[in-house]
Amino acid sequence: RAYVGIPSSAILTSIVCFFVMHGPLSPMQALCVLFSGSVGGGTCSGGYHGVARRSASVLRARQRRANGALIAGMPFARSGSFLPIRGIGSTVCHAKSDASSGSPSPYSDLNEEKVMSDMLGRIRECNYMPSEVREELVDFVVDGRTLGKATRKVARLLCSSSPSDEPVFRMDDSEQRPNGQAVLTLTDASGQTCDSRTDAVMSVMELLASRGIIEGWRDELYPVSDGFYSEPALLVERAAAPFLGTLEYGVHVNGLLLPGRGRDDGSQLLGDMKMWIARRSATKSKYPGMLDHIVAGGQPAGLGLMENVVKECEEEAGVPQWLAREGASPVGAISYETFTPIHCQGDEDVDGVINRVVLFNYDLILPHEFKPSPVDGEVDDFFLWGIDDIKRSMALDYHDPIKPNCYLVIIDYLLRAGHISPETPGYLDVLRELRSGSCC
Amino acid sequence: RAYVGIPSSAILTSIVCFFVMHGPLSPMQALCVLFSGSVGGGTCSGGYHGVARRSASVLRARQRRANGALIAGMPFARSGSFLPIRGIGSTVCHAKSDASSGSPSPYSDLNEEKVMSDMLGRIRECNYMPSEVREELVDFVVDGRTLGKATRKVARLLCSSSPSDEPVFRMDDSEQRPNGQAVLTLTDASGQTCDSRTDAVMSVMELLASRGIIEGWRDELYPVSDGFYSEPALLVERAAAPFLGTLEYGVHVNGLLLPGRGRDDGSQLLGDMKMWIARRSATKSKYPGMLDHIVAGGQPAGLGLMENVVKECEEEAGVPQWLAREGASPVGAISYETFTPIHCQGDEDVDGVINRVVLFNYDLILPHEFKPSPVDGEVDDFFLWGIDDIKRSMALDYHDPIKPNCYLVIIDYLLRAGHISPETPGYLDVLRELRSGSCC
Repeated sequence: RAYVGIPSSAILTSIVCFFVMHGPLSPMQALCVLFSGSVGGGTCSGGYHGVARRSASVLRARQRRANGALIAGMPFARSGSFLPIRGIGSTVCHAKSDASSGSPSPYSDLNEEKVMSDMLGRIRECNYMPSEVREELVDFVVDGRTLGKATRKVARLLCSSSPSDEPVFRMDDSEQRPNGQAVLTLTDASGQTCDSRTDAVMSVMELLASRGIIEGWRDELYPVSDGFYSEPALLVERAAAPFLGTLEYGVHVNGLLLPGRGRDDGSQLLGDMKMWIARRSATKSKYPGMLDHIVAGGQPAGLGLMENVVKECEEEAGVPQWLAREGASPVGAISYETFTPIHCQGDEDVDGVINRVVLFNYDLILPHEFKPSPVDGEVDDFFLWGIDDIKRSMALDYHDPIKPNCYLVIIDYLLRAGHISPETPGYLDVLRELRSGSCC
Repeated sequence: RAYVGIPSSAILTSIVCFFVMHGPLSPMQALCVLFSGSVGGGTCSGGYHGVARRSASVLRARQRRANGALIAGMPFARSGSFLPIRGIGSTVCHAKSDASSGSPSPYSDLNEEKVMSDMLGRIRECNYMPSEVREELVDFVVDGRTLGKATRKVARLLCSSSPSDEPVFRMDDSEQRPNGQAVLTLTDASGQTCDSRTDAVMSVMELLASRGIIEGWRDELYPVSDGFYSEPALLVERAAAPFLGTLEYGVHVNGLLLPGRGRDDGSQLLGDMKMWIARRSATKSKYPGMLDHIVAGGQPAGLGLMENVVKECEEEAGVPQWLAREGASPVGAISYETFTPIHCQGDEDVDGVINRVVLFNYDLILPHEFKPSPVDGEVDDFFLWGIDDIKRSMALDYHDPIKPNCYLVIIDYLLRAGHISPETPGYLDVLRELRSGSCC
């Protein structure tokens, strides 16, 4: 446990990489050279962290490839007891360029540092909240429970919009918050019950829809609550939820083919893991024609999460219920908070709305024989992508990107499944920012 | 997508549960009854979220069990293409008690809500930082880089402790922080290089150790930096790191047996997933005799993460290098920040130190034939636990608990691997608090 410092590690690494790449040493011999030559010492000199790690990663990748032959003659090798070789070690060897110039290697499609920074960009696309917006958000509070967030302009718009003389929304100065701001709340006229509040808020939202401010009405009601497991204070039309900045919930399903699984003759299928990708219907109101998860859907009130997954799997991708129940498994959740500017026609004073979203993530392991098929018209087509395809699509200028919030769920998958190496600089940033949402 | 509300869902659920448990309906028939009877409507009345979810969960669990027979005659069923039945649906049916009394069911060992609240308690044990401590922490800053945190008392102690007339530490008022506090920094006498700073800080820490304030000296140097991938500003003895509140890194390995893997005659092993648990040596300086991961270790400078995993696997558990390389896979990281009170003998004015830790998590899939064995004396024994054993050990009064920070890594595993249902209240709290560490 006391391996401290690698004297001349950069130079040593370069030599080892050179020998491995040009033949005279096997990866194992190279590893022996590296460690016999480098363990011990106590200096902080150059190439301290990165180079040693990268060289180890490169050697490991080569070692894994070499292990194909090594393992074949050993016990358990043919019985599927090992994880397949994955994309972990796919960084190119840039220890040498680091050692000579200190700069990163030139870009390539699978430059892991590039992928890492692309992933960070994708996360930030979803977690977009300018500080000037964040500073002036007001809480939406009912009965002391904080249910959402709105910009000042939207709060004022809601307070001044009512189909009758009685306002439904009002700003409340009596419940001062730490930031000194009043809160947006409901008037007594909207009643004290979930049903009466739902009706009152609905009347305002319908008015805003009729004025063209709320677009894409879905006729779907979302519960408005201060927590996923709490009773809702009211229900709100899905398209109107961002005007109150209430938490919206959804289920996202990674449809996966795993190597070594699913041949009905009992044999193992070799090769890399693959993910099913959907092409959204060109007629969808949001993100038409973009790529998507095999299955994803909003979480409506009154339905269990797994029941929703099973239902959506059947409706969107033709996955039989029994197959979805057997293959789908909950793997966590991610959340994000986005400010979405609104450009209204006319002179409405609306700046933008707040999307606060929690996505429950599922992995669905599918047999190789199964091909998803569009059922309800929400998807035009399904196709398979390998890990490298997924990684390439992270680039912010990728020509055919995935729907923005799917990237978060896919990045979560890549991290969980070992396709992203923690040795690559930026890993902890990606992890931290992926988890920066409130998740509540 | 417009399933809103379940009229009389609590009563319906009770009926369905009763019929399923007492025979007249198959789970599938019961599901049909539940959904045909409950879909549609638009009220917010009682049992809105929880009951519907729980009943779905119970039915799913029973459905999965029933599927054993169902699947056996289908394609892909014998080829290992499905995830095994796991502990997701193991909640007992307490929809009935909910419906009648509104209160949770009585405690049982596998009451998932109890497990959820226990997990939250385990996370909070590690994330222990009283607000009065947090408010008066000072940053440890060198060359404008924030490297750590210390209490005021420890900062004063460091400034007043030096083996020579020249102080090594000083409080710097010139670099005011947002909270108006000065920062702890190094004097010019400690030099400008990593080596000179390491030596200077070491002299102070050795002095504190000689006075009995720093205990458990390890003769291991940790890099002190403002990020895992950055050059260290200095190195510090591992036992002294919490006095500077620097980020400490480690690797934790979940040693896993998966069902359906690893029989060398090619057959599938049925049953539940198991995790290898280690019993720490009774002679270890910290947490002697407690339970632990199969392999865990601090991350020293100059060694790749995976190389460290492979090394520790070999040293602590006798896992051959090739097996560790094949079976181990990075799955993320967790972090936590703990205030640890110190009770010094004599009149030293020390209140406590700050442990800021990032753990890189790995899953190591082991073949069923392999049994880990103690090698370097850090572990006395290894044994296997099922998921239920792990869940039971979360109880804060459990008689033989696991080392505190291992719980975080294990909870992360349970979440990732689908052993914790997001339908259980508290899930999002666990997820949020597990991820509340800075991870940087």
